[in-house]
Amino acid sequence: MEVGLIGLGKMGTGIAKSLLRAGHRVTAFNRTRARAEALRADGATVAGSVAEACRDEAVLTMVADDAALEAVVAGEGGVLGSLRRGGIHVSLSTTSTALSDRLAAEHSKAGQEFVAAPVFGRPEAAEAAKLAVVVAGPATSVQRCKPLFEAMGPKLFVVGERSSMANVVKLSGNFLIATVLESLAETLAFARKSGVDPGLLLEFLTTTMFTAPVYKTYGELIVQGKHEPAGFALPLGLKDVRLVLQAAEAASVPMPIASVLRDRFVTAMARGNQDKDWSVIGRVAAEDAGLPPVKN
Amino acid sequence: MEVGLIGLGKMGTGIAKSLLRAGHRVTAFNRTRARAEALRADGATVAGSVAEACRDEAVLTMVADDAALEAVVAGEGGVLGSLRRGGIHVSLSTTSTALSDRLAAEHSKAGQEFVAAPVFGRPEAAEAAKLAVVVAGPATSVQRCKPLFEAMGPKLFVVGERSSMANVVKLSGNFLIATVLESLAETLAFARKSGVDPGLLLEFLTTTMFTAPVYKTYGELIVQGKHEPAGFALPLGLKDVRLVLQAAEAASVPMPIASVLRDRFVTAMARGNQDKDWSVIGRVAAEDAGLPPVKN
Amino acid sequence: MEVGLIGLGKMGTGIAKSLLRAGHRVTAFNRTRARAEALRADGATVAGSVAEACRDEAVLTMVADDAALEAVVAGEGGVLGSLRRGGIHVSLSTTSTALSDRLAAEHSKAGQEFVAAPVFGRPEAAEAAKLAVVVAGPATSVQRCKPLFEAMGPKLFVVGERSSMANVVKLSGNFLIATVLESLAETLAFARKSGVDPGLLLEFLTTTMFTAPVYKTYGELIVQGKHEPAGFALPLGLKDVRLVLQAAEAASVPMPIASVLRDRFVTAMARGNQDKDWSVIGRVAAEDAGLPPVKN
Amino acid sequence: MEVGLIGLGKMGTGIAKSLLRAGHRVTAFNRTRARAEALRADGATVAGSVAEACRDEAVLTMVADDAALEAVVAGEGGVLGSLRRGGIHVSLSTTSTALSDRLAAEHSKAGQEFVAAPVFGRPEAAEAAKLAVVVAGPATSVQRCKPLFEAMGPKLFVVGERSSMANVVKLSGNFLIATVLESLAETLAFARKSGVDPGLLLEFLTTTMFTAPVYKTYGELIVQGKHEPAGFALPLGLKDVRLVLQAAEAASVPMPIASVLRDRFVTAMARGNQDKDWSVIGRVAAEDAGLPPVKN
Repeated sequence: MEVGLIGLGKMGTGIAKSLLRAGHRVTAFNRTRARAEALRADGATVAGSVAEACRDEAVLTMVADDAALEAVVAGEGGVLGSLRRGGIHVSLSTTSTALSDRLAAEHSKAGQEFVAAPVFGRPEAAEAAKLAVVVAGPATSVQRCKPLFEAMGPKLFVVGERSSMANVVKLSGNFLIATVLESLAETLAFARKSGVDPGLLLEFLTTTMFTAPVYKTYGELIVQGKHEPAGFALPLGLKDVRLVLQAAEAASVPMPIASVLRDRFVTAMARGNQDKDWSVIGRVAAEDAGLPPVKN
Repeated sequence: MEVGLIGLGKMGTGIAKSLLRAGHRVTAFNRTRARAEALRADGATVAGSVAEACRDEAVLTMVADDAALEAVVAGEGGVLGSLRRGGIHVSLSTTSTALSDRLAAEHSKAGQEFVAAPVFGRPEAAEAAKLAVVVAGPATSVQRCKPLFEAMGPKLFVVGERSSMANVVKLSGNFLIATVLESLAETLAFARKSGVDPGLLLEFLTTTMFTAPVYKTYGELIVQGKHEPAGFALPLGLKDVRLVLQAAEAASVPMPIASVLRDRFVTAMARGNQDKDWSVIGRVAAEDAGLPPVKN
Repeated sequence: MEVGLIGLGKMGTGIAKSLLRAGHRVTAFNRTRARAEALRADGATVAGSVAEACRDEAVLTMVADDAALEAVVAGEGGVLGSLRRGGIHVSLSTTSTALSDRLAAEHSKAGQEFVAAPVFGRPEAAEAAKLAVVVAGPATSVQRCKPLFEAMGPKLFVVGERSSMANVVKLSGNFLIATVLESLAETLAFARKSGVDPGLLLEFLTTTMFTAPVYKTYGELIVQGKHEPAGFALPLGLKDVRLVLQAAEAASVPMPIASVLRDRFVTAMARGNQDKDWSVIGRVAAEDAGLPPVKN
Repeated sequence: MEVGLIGLGKMGTGIAKSLLRAGHRVTAFNRTRARAEALRADGATVAGSVAEACRDEAVLTMVADDAALEAVVAGEGGVLGSLRRGGIHVSLSTTSTALSDRLAAEHSKAGQEFVAAPVFGRPEAAEAAKLAVVVAGPATSVQRCKPLFEAMGPKLFVVGERSSMANVVKLSGNFLIATVLESLAETLAFARKSGVDPGLLLEFLTTTMFTAPVYKTYGELIVQGKHEPAGFALPLGLKDVRLVLQAAEAASVPMPIASVLRDRFVTAMARGNQDKDWSVIGRVAAEDAGLPPVKN
């Protein structure tokens, strides 16, 4: 397929490479042009503007948050104004459900279609075509873009026709991961304070009942007190919890663990951990138990 | 080894069979004698009293809770009064850390040793010698009893010399499982309310990031609204959360997710779910979101 | 003083009367003109547009929420475009701190000044000039508008120069009231379930330690199960808790009780209490304890 | 009346003086005899043992907690073994509801009666006969002891015949006070972080909506950061919250604010505030918001 791609952070760049490797023709745009130029070697065409990246039948956006997505979509030369009638905007970003609903309505009004397709996976997985992709939007658009999704990773979950449903799934996944983090943080503080070796405890847990990699990965960061460099920065974790709570509130669903997570992340922010990985809540939980930081 | 075994519920019976199969000689006692008699076919000797089950160098106890364990240990003809000097009491039950500490002191005073060895696994795993055993107590006693633990399952975690440490690990594990339950309960209510198919969501989650069996097992019970018969009854879940909170409070460790779990389990009790599986909190979370029960 | 007043709900109308009674000249505007006409008898001049209400040195706005205030302020013929240079916009509404900060900046850019002056008190208090007024904004503007505030009630709290500080105070007050509600809800459910007469308990509490009227007023609504008609509707309570949490998050302040309130209000919404008074959380707490509704 | 009184801490001593002043004849016992001797000047008779203090028709106990009360009641020479048939044991302590129920049963079995009569008020109020007394127990016993209660203070609340009901009321009251503390702690941290003067805010709140003295007293301790000497020590606050949660759990009543309080008090303990007044949670909340301690 011929497709535009706007937003070349680590994730966007990785996805671009996977798309190109799979034979798609990608016209890439990034505010800082150098990042787009770097993709030429992989076969990408460089767009000089958002509008230029919107000339094909579909354009993918992969940006930081709601504000960034709105900035790219709205206004003169934005996606909304530049995409052809019948064109498809596929948003890969983790955004609010409310924004998805709004963009679906606006694109529809402009005779275009909007598909939300947030992804699970880290930059390396993006580049290695190993993302899990969650998709929601009009069935025909989803069908047309399927080759793109398949180029991103082996796991595709088509949720339904309302685009915000894909955001619900993405936010649910991130909520569950954050819960794993917090439950490990509490457990490991409890263990340390009780004289139990946290490393051995983690090894036991992750080789018996909690074999999912997320337990091992984050458990080790907490056990080792290793929260830099940030694989996923604390403010992003707080943002995602906020989005979960907003979406759940809009649907009248109380989520008490999400509230605990929110309070925890806010506390972690207040204690100056803005630049740390979100696993730093392990340290905050330990502090709340009166424990000294882990030496590493 | 020659060993007594007191308490022949489903777990105790399964463990007895595994011990016998591994060549140990088991003298079994149960308040309702029929359950002991039933083990004769497997090679067990039947004891007519607690005291009779305490004649070997070690006695295992597998009873319901703190009160049951205290009842078996104390008083005339109890474990404490019947076990030889140098004998070992191995407690397999999920009890409070405080009781472990107390029993360790009392057995020590009587010239005996106390080992806490709670297990993870369901009755079928007990019978199939597939339990994970967590052990804490005096090193020499742990060493002497190793053949017993190895007969129970392939996974042995020796935590340390203070017996209550094993209870810390057992309670930590149950806390993490309960957290999985609650986080799934919230997520699936959020998904249902947002129009996302909860079964498909669960399938996606458990085949990508949350591959640990506990997510699949409990997630399906929630998705199907299947909370009877109780694999692990709600009041036992509440008991374990209570024990976690008590132990953590004694160690001055705040555990906010455990507090959420406690409130949730209490609510579930108040709504008449005493006989249900603890996964029934999935239904309670759905009710709090204004959802009708899942039909099954 | 000569002053415009935009927004003639119950609160706005009451305030208008108090201002007129104190000798101020009020030009009143309301979207539904009839409400403005009704004030003619009290001496008000009726404005046909927002712009017409902005011709004096100051204009007061008293509208429902952020969105309503933004709608009145922005765009052609809005407050921002209509007020003279040097004019003062006094916002009496309960809004977010973020909006206050933004309006302060925008008015400043337009050579105008913005004062936030949210009020505590019900419509009867507004009409009887018994409101408590919390004010923040540029000192000179606050000073100039003092006669207006004094006409509204006997209690004036000038917080500081940053207008959003007044919103912080207003939101803090509402947070404390909501906390009183929730703590009474939990207490009275606990009492009922324990066989203690909730009415007698409340009488005891409010005549000993908890003499503040808020305990008596809301306690009685809960004891009597009387949540209609809504003095302050549930969705407004939820809105205020949301605003507190947003403002506190922006300032990196965890507020765990506010999180509990949020979950409670969301649950109350999910159970169909949108039209009830926010004291309906007393009934929701009772339901969570397995109690039947209070008959009234 | 002729009455025994066991336990002469600050509260017990104050109550003894009020009883004596009202013309009752008091036989006082305290483990450290000097405290009893000190009451001779006020007209008390000094008992040499618990049993000696149990010779009249009623005996009052005022001790620290469940364990202390059990120690005084049970065993040879304890209240249970020493009190005449038909005698009344009035417990003034803040204890668990479970212990009240148990003592009621045991005294009943011994042909005696048990009345729970916990009090609200500080030592000065005890001495000045200004306590509020909450009473539950058999109606005839309550009636007979009325002169004693009236000598303690002007406010008497007879809850019912089941003695533990009085404990429910006492625990409810302490829960509400603790909630006031926590809600002020959160509010004042939010205010400080937002640049609002906490002292002025408190003054505003306590002269408008929150006029109950508990807001002013505890608010000022938090504003001034003055948590020593302890009027009511942190571990006692934690104990009371624990008792509320236990009693509520036994009655299947979820109390999410009590859970928040518990986590907060545990955190405060973990940070080394064992000797501080329970208002120290104001400082803990401020720390969680990244604020430095208040200078005082």
